[in-house]
Amino acid sequence: MPKIPYKIYLTEDEIPQSWYNLKAVMKELPPPFINPGTLKPCTAEELSRVFCSGLVNQELNTTDKDIEIPEEIRAFYKMYRPSPLVRAYCLEKQLDTPAEIYYKFEGTNTSGSHKLNSAAAQVYYAKKQGLTSLTTETGAGQWGTALAMACAYYDLPLSVYMVKISSEQKPYRKAVIETYGGKVIPSPSNTTEVGRKILAENPGTGGSLGCAISEAIETAVKTKNCRYVLGSVLDHVLLHQSVIGEEMKTACEKYDIKPDIIIGCAGGGSNFGGLIAPFMGDKINGKNNIRFIAVEPASCPSLTRGKYAFDFGDTGQTTPLMKMYTLGSGFMPSPNHAGGLRYHGMSRIVSKLYADGYLEARSVEQSKVFAAATMFARCEGTLPAPESSHALKAAIDEALKCKESGEKKTIVFGLTGTGYFDMSAYMSYNDQSMTDYIPTDEDLAKGFATLPQAES
Amino acid sequence: MPKIPYKIYLTEDEIPQSWYNLKAVMKELPPPFINPGTLKPCTAEELSRVFCSGLVNQELNTTDKDIEIPEEIRAFYKMYRPSPLVRAYCLEKQLDTPAEIYYKFEGTNTSGSHKLNSAAAQVYYAKKQGLTSLTTETGAGQWGTALAMACAYYDLPLSVYMVKISSEQKPYRKAVIETYGGKVIPSPSNTTEVGRKILAENPGTGGSLGCAISEAIETAVKTKNCRYVLGSVLDHVLLHQSVIGEEMKTACEKYDIKPDIIIGCAGGGSNFGGLIAPFMGDKINGKNNIRFIAVEPASCPSLTRGKYAFDFGDTGQTTPLMKMYTLGSGFMPSPNHAGGLRYHGMSRIVSKLYADGYLEARSVEQSKVFAAATMFARCEGTLPAPESSHALKAAIDEALKCKESGEKKTIVFGLTGTGYFDMSAYMSYNDQSMTDYIPTDEDLAKGFATLPQAES
Repeated sequence: MPKIPYKIYLTEDEIPQSWYNLKAVMKELPPPFINPGTLKPCTAEELSRVFCSGLVNQELNTTDKDIEIPEEIRAFYKMYRPSPLVRAYCLEKQLDTPAEIYYKFEGTNTSGSHKLNSAAAQVYYAKKQGLTSLTTETGAGQWGTALAMACAYYDLPLSVYMVKISSEQKPYRKAVIETYGGKVIPSPSNTTEVGRKILAENPGTGGSLGCAISEAIETAVKTKNCRYVLGSVLDHVLLHQSVIGEEMKTACEKYDIKPDIIIGCAGGGSNFGGLIAPFMGDKINGKNNIRFIAVEPASCPSLTRGKYAFDFGDTGQTTPLMKMYTLGSGFMPSPNHAGGLRYHGMSRIVSKLYADGYLEARSVEQSKVFAAATMFARCEGTLPAPESSHALKAAIDEALKCKESGEKKTIVFGLTGTGYFDMSAYMSYNDQSMTDYIPTDEDLAKGFATLPQAES
Repeated sequence: MPKIPYKIYLTEDEIPQSWYNLKAVMKELPPPFINPGTLKPCTAEELSRVFCSGLVNQELNTTDKDIEIPEEIRAFYKMYRPSPLVRAYCLEKQLDTPAEIYYKFEGTNTSGSHKLNSAAAQVYYAKKQGLTSLTTETGAGQWGTALAMACAYYDLPLSVYMVKISSEQKPYRKAVIETYGGKVIPSPSNTTEVGRKILAENPGTGGSLGCAISEAIETAVKTKNCRYVLGSVLDHVLLHQSVIGEEMKTACEKYDIKPDIIIGCAGGGSNFGGLIAPFMGDKINGKNNIRFIAVEPASCPSLTRGKYAFDFGDTGQTTPLMKMYTLGSGFMPSPNHAGGLRYHGMSRIVSKLYADGYLEARSVEQSKVFAAATMFARCEGTLPAPESSHALKAAIDEALKCKESGEKKTIVFGLTGTGYFDMSAYMSYNDQSMTDYIPTDEDLAKGFATLPQAES
């Protein structure tokens, strides 16, 4: 068995040949999408009006565990994958823990996160279908950047509806998207009916993710050969992100690393679902007893304080209904929340696994997340994304428990990306102006009131 | 011979054991530093008042070709090295050239550039000497970031004099330095005599690199157990950067890659000198016939339009005199120059090699540099630093010459870093407000007038 280096790089021949479809191994499946008009399960045809057909096929596939990654996508992956599995020697030393800590680092590409794994796939299927343009929305900008990179590679025009206040506060994210040729439209805009309506009603609004989604969908539906693409939550996005878990599994087997705990941050759930996929599959089949921990912000606690209910995917309540852990589509985390992971709901797959007891969830406050991030940056070198630092914080907590108990556990977490475009959040942490926000039960009740059914 | 992958990663055991000291193989050495007061060569003792003694020893070493990299620095290097040697398959396809194009990519660490290679070494020697703090200056911020990362790792306090206008225009760079625990002092400041004097004379000044250097040196000299460290130009910095060339040589030999042309950008010359070091050593010894091309901005053309003369290293004219290609220490590129590489002079080693005909130099205008950078980002994925894109532009030009001639040359260039903190420059390129600046002969004459001797 080779000595474990700081960074484990697989060779490009070891990039996975297939994605791992968790639904094919789950004992029970998540309930299907429901058409809110007919209250019947959505058909592939209905979904194909909005999404690429290749992606709809993946979204509905519950039978094939291994879904081949087309050669063209593998060629794209070779530009920035395999991503390293890093042994956090310096963090272990800093914590003085007997635990072994590893992180799978997805931040080595310009989008700065794992989002590129699904962008590369989604644009490929769009191109294959003969589409001539795509739309999407972006808040913080990671997904918009990743999609712009993929669209540049495949030469497909892209319109990104970027939350207006975000496009103003993050002009550099906007500039990256534009450098890759993406068209950035601050939302709400006058390019759509819904945008014009909102502008008329709220002339000075800074916009919202819900509004940006609605504009992107409207444009996709009304434009010939155009579709809408989404960077998280959906099953096909989790499928694409399983390339993370598959690579990690190969590396673990190659170096005889046996994780006791795997930790990921969870907003919409695509990174977490992809990170754990093959390990969770083995757990379902009784082949391991790994603890899986999803970590979310205390300010947006869908798993830890949400309801498992049918809900809309967007604030505008235009999408099919999904059964998921949700805070209600009307829930908005406090504006002082700087750490990402702001989505009101959670992947159907992650939700179902959580409901069935296959994984744990916890929430952390952002000041503790940034404290962990700063400590990590100083000892391990890399400045992590706020999102990723949720998982980091939980990994540190678990490693400190090992220090107390003397146990030599193997802890692996997903470091989804870098924080290079999140420096305003770091600044507020550095100058101690950052505050925490934990919604009260009353705050949550307002969100739950927007659920389509009066579940309680 | 193995097939050449997109990214060649050496193993951590292949990180070089020693740096390559070009001066030990040069047929003629650069003239020594001259004390401007006595007009005699500087002694080690004189230099040690400002610089760490370990670094002074390296600065003056002209006999040992291989200088061992201490184990502790190698441990630091393992956190982010070996850096990949990337085959630019997608760029080759985009250009439709028979040439093979490779780039050695130094942007995979948070400082975003090669600067960390020397920061890691310099802070190690400072710590070993028992120093208790360091000072430096930073303009664009790459060096300040790299040094802050190294100081965090070695737990050594750091004060960074950051050009005031730069600290205001690049608050995020400042925030990164502060996240790593570095103290950022906008310069001119009231913490030094020279700063107070400049502030009194120019109350509203935005500062300059020359002023920041003077403040950093003053603080280092006046503070107990404190020294000043510098991120380029000096021979020991080139020595540390030879880790780039040594790694590249190992990778080339492993995959039987035989460069015909090696291209690097050149500001102070440390990246270029480090990139070419072992290959240039072989050329001097008649073992290869590689063409070496240093690429500089047309707005700051020290090699292509400067004089080979003794000059000060700083605008304040406080350093020893070095014989180098220089535009005069009073030369300042136009403020519209956004592409880095703004230093008025050039490494003594690179200057001497150029004077003796071992390398070529050319200059490029920044709009062409950003056009090349944007094309590269879109096809290769990575968004390059403006500095690095000077080398990229020349590599593209050479590849297009191969397309015309049908020659299958092997072109290697140094991609020194990423442009994630340079988005304001990309924005001015994207919105076509970027202009080019080529100094007139009259502009250059003003700079030459600041040379200490009236050479012509």
